[in-house]
Amino acid sequence: MSISSKSAERAIDAARQTSVRIGVPMNIAILDGSGHLKAFLRMDGAMLGSVDIALKKAKTAFLLGMNTEAVFEFCKPGAPAFGLEHTNGGLVVFAGGIPLKADTGETIGAVGVSGGTVSEDFGVAQAAAAALTN
Amino acid sequence: MSISSKSAERAIDAARQTSVRIGVPMNIAILDGSGHLKAFLRMDGAMLGSVDIALKKAKTAFLLGMNTEAVFEFCKPGAPAFGLEHTNGGLVVFAGGIPLKADTGETIGAVGVSGGTVSEDFGVAQAAAAALTN
Amino acid sequence: MSISSKSAERAIDAARQTSVRIGVPMNIAILDGSGHLKAFLRMDGAMLGSVDIALKKAKTAFLLGMNTEAVFEFCKPGAPAFGLEHTNGGLVVFAGGIPLKADTGETIGAVGVSGGTVSEDFGVAQAAAAALTN
Amino acid sequence: MSISSKSAERAIDAARQTSVRIGVPMNIAILDGSGHLKAFLRMDGAMLGSVDIALKKAKTAFLLGMNTEAVFEFCKPGAPAFGLEHTNGGLVVFAGGIPLKADTGETIGAVGVSGGTVSEDFGVAQAAAAALTN
Repeated sequence: MSISSKSAERAIDAARQTSVRIGVPMNIAILDGSGHLKAFLRMDGAMLGSVDIALKKAKTAFLLGMNTEAVFEFCKPGAPAFGLEHTNGGLVVFAGGIPLKADTGETIGAVGVSGGTVSEDFGVAQAAAAALTN
Repeated sequence: MSISSKSAERAIDAARQTSVRIGVPMNIAILDGSGHLKAFLRMDGAMLGSVDIALKKAKTAFLLGMNTEAVFEFCKPGAPAFGLEHTNGGLVVFAGGIPLKADTGETIGAVGVSGGTVSEDFGVAQAAAAALTN
Repeated sequence: MSISSKSAERAIDAARQTSVRIGVPMNIAILDGSGHLKAFLRMDGAMLGSVDIALKKAKTAFLLGMNTEAVFEFCKPGAPAFGLEHTNGGLVVFAGGIPLKADTGETIGAVGVSGGTVSEDFGVAQAAAAALTN
Repeated sequence: MSISSKSAERAIDAARQTSVRIGVPMNIAILDGSGHLKAFLRMDGAMLGSVDIALKKAKTAFLLGMNTEAVFEFCKPGAPAFGLEHTNGGLVVFAGGIPLKADTGETIGAVGVSGGTVSEDFGVAQAAAAALTN
């Protein structure tokens, strides 16, 4: 089971609408069930440095099967998994990455959003994820 | 001057229509005037290994300002620029990457397509490029 | 749909039995439906340099959805996709990598074997693939 | 002196049994006396992001000849070897990697386990190491 290109584009549209509403242009990445890039959009004016961040947020959420900000709890200062963020070619451990799961719990894709504050990124990622799971 | 997200999506749509018409699902990458990823789509059933190839074709066309198959002339067996394809983190020197140029000759973006034969990739990349320059 | 660890180990056992029968110790890699490593075995005496080759054969077969020796046809001297083998972090384009496909045609894993001659590797990879698809 | 494939598989079985008992699917990597991969298993449901972590834990334990959590003491905040974890292509410095040593003190292999909490990983790695040294 995976994300179709139709679903991926619907998710990008949902993310874009939320981005426009809050007035923050975003980079939006959608991965499929193999963890490979399915669709991507950089809205006009979105930060160039956020291309890599959006892609890595999606990768992080996919590989670890949890929201990116939840990964932070394992590797934040004083937490046991020191340096976890340097594995897998570089993970991003702040909000904006959300895994997509089947009813079985299996990860079938992921969303990564970057361009605004951490809470703005998270809100836009939620909009994309909702469009994919509804 | 650069590629707007609206234009990038129009280019992806044009590429997709050509892909559907020839019956070959493609990976389609659009770079903007800074050479960064603007939009991407992997059509359902497109080869996973072509994600990297589409991205590198677009990068090659952008960085060298010419079609990817034209770059081959410089590094093919017997040509002077031996190993050129190993620079810049890896170039792809067969057809499917096309730079987008302003009237001034300045490169303002690039298209990269991969998923079929070299000539199929080229035809789909041309459709995307035409949608961006018309 | 993907490869279970039970299936992966059955495939490794089948590959090992063939290797023992022909007297050539092998490296055997099994990828699952996400293209990630599921199981691996280096038989005693198998070449160290073949660890990387077995892993890359499996990756190549997974990403391109075809036997590794079939990929060679696209990038061999004089063929159109010059340098294809340098994409995706390095592909291996001689026999020994076989994709595993569902009835739908979807790639659900891959096998990579290295340690002997190309035809020995191919025979052992076939044994592993047969154990996974039967 | 090195780890035979028979020993490596016995170690993986021991690790698996412990993993099943605690209900946490794990990635288990065994390196031999040259530091190359000897055997690997990703149990069903084990995190994909832990493939890389298990491999790097084993590498870290092998290269430094000590448990991964002991390496942390050298590079933790305030300790002298700042950035040690970024050498050797990336080390992992939390528990789950254990070197295997001959009576002479020579490192003859290593175990790396990842998939659960740091203490769960450590317990499973100990089970694998015990199976290899007994």
